[in-house]
Amino acid sequence: MILTVTLNTAVDLTYHVPTLRRHTTHRVTETQDRPGGKGVNVARVLARLGHPTTVTGFAGGPTGAWLREALSGEPHLKDALVPIGGTTRRTVAVVDAAGGDTTQFNEPGPTVTAAEWEALKKAYASLLPGAEAVALCGSLPPGVPVGAYAHLIREARSAGVPVLLDTSGEPLRRGIAARPDLVKPNAAELADLTGTRDPRHAARAARRRGARAVVASLGAEGLLAETPVGAWRAAPPGPVRGNPTGAGDSVVAGLLAGLAEGADWPDRLVRAAALSAATVHASAAGEYDEAAYRDLAARITATALPGAA
Amino acid sequence: MILTVTLNTAVDLTYHVPTLRRHTTHRVTETQDRPGGKGVNVARVLARLGHPTTVTGFAGGPTGAWLREALSGEPHLKDALVPIGGTTRRTVAVVDAAGGDTTQFNEPGPTVTAAEWEALKKAYASLLPGAEAVALCGSLPPGVPVGAYAHLIREARSAGVPVLLDTSGEPLRRGIAARPDLVKPNAAELADLTGTRDPRHAARAARRRGARAVVASLGAEGLLAETPVGAWRAAPPGPVRGNPTGAGDSVVAGLLAGLAEGADWPDRLVRAAALSAATVHASAAGEYDEAAYRDLAARITATALPGAA
Repeated sequence: MILTVTLNTAVDLTYHVPTLRRHTTHRVTETQDRPGGKGVNVARVLARLGHPTTVTGFAGGPTGAWLREALSGEPHLKDALVPIGGTTRRTVAVVDAAGGDTTQFNEPGPTVTAAEWEALKKAYASLLPGAEAVALCGSLPPGVPVGAYAHLIREARSAGVPVLLDTSGEPLRRGIAARPDLVKPNAAELADLTGTRDPRHAARAARRRGARAVVASLGAEGLLAETPVGAWRAAPPGPVRGNPTGAGDSVVAGLLAGLAEGADWPDRLVRAAALSAATVHASAAGEYDEAAYRDLAARITATALPGAA
Repeated sequence: MILTVTLNTAVDLTYHVPTLRRHTTHRVTETQDRPGGKGVNVARVLARLGHPTTVTGFAGGPTGAWLREALSGEPHLKDALVPIGGTTRRTVAVVDAAGGDTTQFNEPGPTVTAAEWEALKKAYASLLPGAEAVALCGSLPPGVPVGAYAHLIREARSAGVPVLLDTSGEPLRRGIAARPDLVKPNAAELADLTGTRDPRHAARAARRRGARAVVASLGAEGLLAETPVGAWRAAPPGPVRGNPTGAGDSVVAGLLAGLAEGADWPDRLVRAAALSAATVHASAAGEYDEAAYRDLAARITATALPGAA
């Protein structure tokens, strides 16, 4: 199975409104609740692709109970979340008719106690031996040490399990120093980490900081990979319209699915780029459009980039 | 006891953010969940004033369970909510550092079945004989007939229980024709109902449409009452800064508290104006500041207005 870790799980609310105006009252025309947090999104896409996937991380309170109940209906997906005394956060994404990015409100998440963090580390250690790969995804809730991902990466490396890190800020900085097999920053996270805005220079700098491979998600420009065996770019054939929520998580799912099936780098990138575009294309936030995925996977190619990695 | 009816109860979420910008992501710095819906707010203020109060309306799903759990801890407050298969809605109020009104997102609410509406009518009929007064508050959830308030008003009148209506749009229009003892529109609701922007003309027009008395809440200008025995105005001594969430519900609570204690109109208006300003003044949305209430109640006076009602 593939293991995904979401320390700050969420219930994601999507609100549709005609126009968003500051300091006014909006009647929400349509609302949708979904299990959320980056690693949970990754797991749901992997499960829908048919990969046995296990979710760990923290869940608590009424929102945590709702999240676990919602996950219990998903085939190929196993819930190994660790219960906490706090309450799982919500996020609210407001979609207006003007289109473009959502207006997003992210609750900080519950405070995790030292004992709960110890319980998570134990659960993780017991799950690692059965994992083909592990993905560590998203922000850290209050109370979890900033070096948490570095610890989980070292554990995975000791167990010989390939480990992917998808986070930002200080947790990314600390995590990368623990030498993960792969990091998947977006353009802003990569620039923030390395201080350089040129994606290729920045991706190489991230490798020098400890990441074995880097796949950067560059929005409409697709994916850039810098790996020990070469560099590639893969982008959808044309602009993709829709809701970008979850597109980055689908990149992670595509990369992990390719890894689990023993695909080479160009093939992994094609899957990841196709899955990401098919997620933007889907009407519901964070779902992917099956037909669009198959169509795009057949049409996208990964182009090798010149220059030694 | 005083009975409040909230057909569209809610869990009210308050999000604090530094600055609200459309199409960007916000880290919420502070979050707060409160039992909500206008009649629930009215009941909580009445209970805090020491009046035995019963809450009815609909509640369902995890949010409904949370709401009932939160209400169970309140002294003087009795939960007589009717369970439904749907899920109680949420509202999100985003407070930014710029101050002023919140940016508000209101979910539409669950669809109520015909059988659930019948159950509510039965519960209401059994509660009326024990009520000194009843307040019908807020919007109607999908599935409840638009004439719902008219029905509940007629029942209260048959039982000889004074009935206050605080709603807007078509439910207000239909309700007012059933001759409630009191309606409490704000300036916009009153203008929308009567087609005239002058509050006094509009309040008189609302009386001609069927309301025995009208108390209009005019924001910073305070309250205007048009009653069978005279007209009054009552306003706080100076501008009140703070969060206006729940200020209108505190007006309703003040009016009902005055009614239950046999106070005359000027005294009822003073209590309502003071309670409303003390609610704006409080740091938490929908709570009132006890000391500010006592201070304002001693300083506000109701001024009789000339002219026959």
